[in-house]
Amino acid sequence: MSITRMSQLFVRTLREDPADAEVASHRWLVRAGYIRRVAPGIYSWLPLGLRVLHNVERIVREEMDAIGAQEVSFPALLPREPYEATGRWDDYGDNLFRLRDRRDNDMLLGPTHEEMFTLVVKDLYSSYKDLPLAIYQIQNKYRDEARPRAGLLRGREFIMKDSYSFDIDDAGLDESYRRHREAYIRIFDRLGFDYEIVQATAGAMGGSKSEEFLAVSDIGEDTFVRSPGGYAANVEAVQTLRPEPVDASNTPAAHVEDTPETPTIDTLVAVARELFPDREWSAADTLKNVVVKLRHPDGSTEALAIGIPGDRQVDAKRLEAWADPSVVEEFTAEDFAQNPALVQGYIGPQALGEESASGVRYLTDPRIVEGTAWVTGANEAGRHVFDLVCGRDFTSDGSIDVAEVFDGDPAPDGSGPLTLARGMEMGHIFQLGRKYAEALELKVLDPNGKQVVVTMGSYGIGVSRAVAAVAEGTCDDKGLSWPRDLAPFEVHVLATGKGEDVFAKATEIAEELDAAGVTVLLDDRKASPGVKFADSELLGMPVSVVVGRGLADGVVEVRTRSTGDRVDVPVADAVGAIRETLERLG
Amino acid sequence: MSITRMSQLFVRTLREDPADAEVASHRWLVRAGYIRRVAPGIYSWLPLGLRVLHNVERIVREEMDAIGAQEVSFPALLPREPYEATGRWDDYGDNLFRLRDRRDNDMLLGPTHEEMFTLVVKDLYSSYKDLPLAIYQIQNKYRDEARPRAGLLRGREFIMKDSYSFDIDDAGLDESYRRHREAYIRIFDRLGFDYEIVQATAGAMGGSKSEEFLAVSDIGEDTFVRSPGGYAANVEAVQTLRPEPVDASNTPAAHVEDTPETPTIDTLVAVARELFPDREWSAADTLKNVVVKLRHPDGSTEALAIGIPGDRQVDAKRLEAWADPSVVEEFTAEDFAQNPALVQGYIGPQALGEESASGVRYLTDPRIVEGTAWVTGANEAGRHVFDLVCGRDFTSDGSIDVAEVFDGDPAPDGSGPLTLARGMEMGHIFQLGRKYAEALELKVLDPNGKQVVVTMGSYGIGVSRAVAAVAEGTCDDKGLSWPRDLAPFEVHVLATGKGEDVFAKATEIAEELDAAGVTVLLDDRKASPGVKFADSELLGMPVSVVVGRGLADGVVEVRTRSTGDRVDVPVADAVGAIRETLERLG
Repeated sequence: MSITRMSQLFVRTLREDPADAEVASHRWLVRAGYIRRVAPGIYSWLPLGLRVLHNVERIVREEMDAIGAQEVSFPALLPREPYEATGRWDDYGDNLFRLRDRRDNDMLLGPTHEEMFTLVVKDLYSSYKDLPLAIYQIQNKYRDEARPRAGLLRGREFIMKDSYSFDIDDAGLDESYRRHREAYIRIFDRLGFDYEIVQATAGAMGGSKSEEFLAVSDIGEDTFVRSPGGYAANVEAVQTLRPEPVDASNTPAAHVEDTPETPTIDTLVAVARELFPDREWSAADTLKNVVVKLRHPDGSTEALAIGIPGDRQVDAKRLEAWADPSVVEEFTAEDFAQNPALVQGYIGPQALGEESASGVRYLTDPRIVEGTAWVTGANEAGRHVFDLVCGRDFTSDGSIDVAEVFDGDPAPDGSGPLTLARGMEMGHIFQLGRKYAEALELKVLDPNGKQVVVTMGSYGIGVSRAVAAVAEGTCDDKGLSWPRDLAPFEVHVLATGKGEDVFAKATEIAEELDAAGVTVLLDDRKASPGVKFADSELLGMPVSVVVGRGLADGVVEVRTRSTGDRVDVPVADAVGAIRETLERLG
Repeated sequence: MSITRMSQLFVRTLREDPADAEVASHRWLVRAGYIRRVAPGIYSWLPLGLRVLHNVERIVREEMDAIGAQEVSFPALLPREPYEATGRWDDYGDNLFRLRDRRDNDMLLGPTHEEMFTLVVKDLYSSYKDLPLAIYQIQNKYRDEARPRAGLLRGREFIMKDSYSFDIDDAGLDESYRRHREAYIRIFDRLGFDYEIVQATAGAMGGSKSEEFLAVSDIGEDTFVRSPGGYAANVEAVQTLRPEPVDASNTPAAHVEDTPETPTIDTLVAVARELFPDREWSAADTLKNVVVKLRHPDGSTEALAIGIPGDRQVDAKRLEAWADPSVVEEFTAEDFAQNPALVQGYIGPQALGEESASGVRYLTDPRIVEGTAWVTGANEAGRHVFDLVCGRDFTSDGSIDVAEVFDGDPAPDGSGPLTLARGMEMGHIFQLGRKYAEALELKVLDPNGKQVVVTMGSYGIGVSRAVAAVAEGTCDDKGLSWPRDLAPFEVHVLATGKGEDVFAKATEIAEELDAAGVTVLLDDRKASPGVKFADSELLGMPVSVVVGRGLADGVVEVRTRSTGDRVDVPVADAVGAIRETLERLG
């Protein structure tokens, strides 16, 4: 190793926030000269940022190797055919970067590599004896996000560790999944995240069991819930407790009432109170029927009506996850005009369902159980029907669990009330099962000589995103503050003064640290102490050493970035004191 | 570290050559399970291959760091605008992968990153005090080659180290260039190539001084020349010695002769001998005028006539390099029809030139100097003109140096006769000068406070290509044979036998080597000794150790892959003997 000098380092710090920075990590990473934007969602790594990235990669690599996963590296530029075979060429929609080569072959930039890994195992392996297998890569991924944001947190070109497991049976997959899950726990512990492991939906990946590792953060794009008893799920995966059926034998027959000027649930509740003042009314007594349009990957569209209690909205993310790979679109005025059985604002269950006048598929919230009575649209302008009983007066084509989740809703496993929080998806582990192996015919011989389809798992970590997430979790109002394991340099030596002796002593301390295996950045610039202090806090090395005025008294100052601690130590003891400070940081 | 066991390793060796393998390195890298083809010119790295690749990267990184170059990392997916500003968006033609994002923005996959590096320096730096600067990256590059071939040797996605230097003046650029050149010499020495540093043309990169590092190899796509006195150049860059002018005062006046049935130079020479039997005639006395069409980057076309001595062909590569970024196309029968002044097969200088009847630009070989007399077309079917003297009877619009180079031609620097050889381009260093800095307005303040344009160098190494080139240079008829520094593992321990003691002892030796810091691959498979020996030679670790039959006599066999040496050593001394063998390999 050798000392890195700031007079030579390719870095410039900025005093102003970049115009497009929405979150702290993005602001500081740009201001501290760690990254630069090249295009929306596409960044370059400057020397300091690249060192952090390499540190994250090292930790990920060590823990993947420790569970026996083997590193490979696949291209980013891929042929269409395998993705066509699994349906993902279409399912990814606009998120996929597609292109044509000079011979007009369709190609893509890989969003993840399930297909390619499946094919290479098919190419190499043929027997149950070859399994289990886990292979991984750390590599560029591409997704043409509609809304790239927050710097590295949601990019269009980004670095992922993706691994894939291959097993002969479900028990093997469970074990591979468990080993990855434990490796992920070690990785995220080492990166120093505050994270939560939550149940997740599989989305376009297909498959069954799936969990996400979320960095808990107010700026996270993902909403998740947790209960005192340990249930945790991202909001898309929360399963609503289905209440017991209700005895409706005392519920009066349904009756239609005039309800003029009730465009909203609130106005409807107000009218209900006027009409039947001796009964209790709330938004939860109303049944709202929302019509949307689903656009399927093949381009066809379908209307869908969703019945939910009126006190809740349809949660757009839950609905998107439910619909995936189909896309949810607005049911427009034109669509309404083409289906006159749907009376906008007054749609009731009786006009819905595949067998009904509208023919629109009708799915209802799990809370709408047999025997429950509802106020809902009467399929006539200005009129609603009261005491419409599920099972007695209407049925649906099935259940759909896409209503918004409230703080305090019960956890589905009975572990107490849910609390909502926000997080950033840092890792995702999937039991893919046999979807990809079936589509691409990955089979091996079992012990009886029979061809069986292999079962797979898929496991991702956002490596470049982790750099931003750590920065986000550790920065303060002065700049970045890196944990020792991730810092570009462990120690920042500042020569603050004009005397030759200051520079000579600072260099000497830096060289001694370097010789002791400590990574060192030396601020040898001709700049004022104020500039050096500010830059040091902005750049965020865990420990800094100020060699300056104190030198006359035989002391240097050792600062700890994360705590703000400052202690004077005798020059002669400086290197020892710095190493002790580093040890205390872990 | 830990031992890698072949029973677990993700590898399968093949007994048959892959159908598309044209060269030995490609054949062996696929058969040994180092790489797999994903699409034409696009490969995946399996575990063994990736370890070699990482070793090459390590060597390149160490030597770049040693000259103070700083590592950064740029995206592969780039916006069009900077490449538009320098003209390369068009100049790269079909070689550039272009695509559009979901908002219809034009993007590209970076072929090299001059533009992006220029812009980031412009973003960060503003003063001569910041310079010199050298920054580099090791990263995926993309070129949509018309003829991807030879596995990793000419790929469409490949890994390059590219670096860029920034200096305030030409002397600085010279120094940056020199430092890179020396780093490259150290890198290629460490990789163990037989290489030649040759003068090169700059091609689409622009710029002035440029040299290539060619791995000398019969399968190379590049032809180069070298002289006994040390001149070396790739064939595109060879400059022809211009002979002294000739005294033409005794040359008779030009005379047109009937030359029926002379479609070729040979038939023309035969007719000349018949007509004037007392003179010496050879193909070198004839002047051949070749017409081609240039297609410019803006899509326009232009006819070009090239006059060269009839004993030489126009060298397609030299002409391509001369024309670049314009592309050379055939001058078709239709084109001839449109320009009746050009009599196909009988074109003479008098019908050529911008001022002539045809109006076609006419450039001539350097050998066509003033006073030389030629037999050439008379611009009439079946007739040639004799004793047509350059300068007296015709002139051209300029000189063009694109004739083929012959073994034995004189070196332009007087260092003796040239010898032709073939090589693979492994590195290329350029003095770019100010082309990119001017196009993208990269200026800094000089010591006088004046804005000056920065001057740049650009330096590339084909990192993935180097893996193939080393394989190509070291393999034999049994498989791969890696130098110690690049090998996936230094030692291959083979347990050949059925006894438990064989596996136990092999494992023990492997563990001792591992503990001593030696990287070890242990063949613990249940396979025959023959299979293990064959695979060991195919995989190509520098040293292998056979623990098998000899064990009963207290010996193991240590084999050196590159020399074929085999020695029995006592089991107790095995680890020491293996380490000594490794030391001898360097």
